[in-house]
Amino acid sequence: MDRVPVLKIGDILLVSIQIDLDDQTAMQLQEDLSDRIVETGAHGVVIDISALEIVDSFIGRMLSTIAAVSRVLDAETVVVGMRPAVAITLVELGLSLNGVRTALNVDKALEILAEVRRIHGVGVLSIADDDGA
Amino acid sequence: MDRVPVLKIGDILLVSIQIDLDDQTAMQLQEDLSDRIVETGAHGVVIDISALEIVDSFIGRMLSTIAAVSRVLDAETVVVGMRPAVAITLVELGLSLNGVRTALNVDKALEILAEVRRIHGVGVLSIADDDGA
Repeated sequence: MDRVPVLKIGDILLVSIQIDLDDQTAMQLQEDLSDRIVETGAHGVVIDISALEIVDSFIGRMLSTIAAVSRVLDAETVVVGMRPAVAITLVELGLSLNGVRTALNVDKALEILAEVRRIHGVGVLSIADDDGA
Repeated sequence: MDRVPVLKIGDILLVSIQIDLDDQTAMQLQEDLSDRIVETGAHGVVIDISALEIVDSFIGRMLSTIAAVSRVLDAETVVVGMRPAVAITLVELGLSLNGVRTALNVDKALEILAEVRRIHGVGVLSIADDDGA
């Protein structure tokens, strides 16, 4: 079975999705990611989707779920590398990536994660349910 | 055509190989990578092969070529995430990853790259020093 690698870079976990995800692979990714967050104490997750030509409702939901689960585990999720065509399709389909932050590239995502960390401080996060912006 | 994304993290480029590479895709990756090194002035390349169950002579040669080309462009290459079974097969097949450094994970690769940079010094390579703008 194909498995998407989860890479640890400092206190960030990076996932680059390059294959078509079926139910099984998506579920496995969610599990691997949660396990790694707990194991490493990572405070941020960056998901690169630059290889994806299509983001349908299945992938959209998966990204939202990953973001929600990660948040409960005290890690913020940022999706990077979305192609312009994908963004247009998402809006046309009326899909919103609920609770998912986006950034143009990994560097900007790391800035956002550092900023989030600075604002929230460490430990305050637990109750706060920000829907900023 | 499938294309392996090249991610920029600070002054490092990260490539996570998750698909079976044919001639075309491998060639494209080499080109993309060289272009990005020149474009970003990256001094290090990290190639994650944790998703690969097999590293044959074709992949081995490609990794060596990438490392050689990157070195000419003043970027060091580190391959990370090699599975134990892959390492055993490589040795059994008598394949050596010529000129390719390896590390267990991305964090360790970043340490190696920082160390290499420290030893070589930035000034020594300064004929083509970055002129920030």
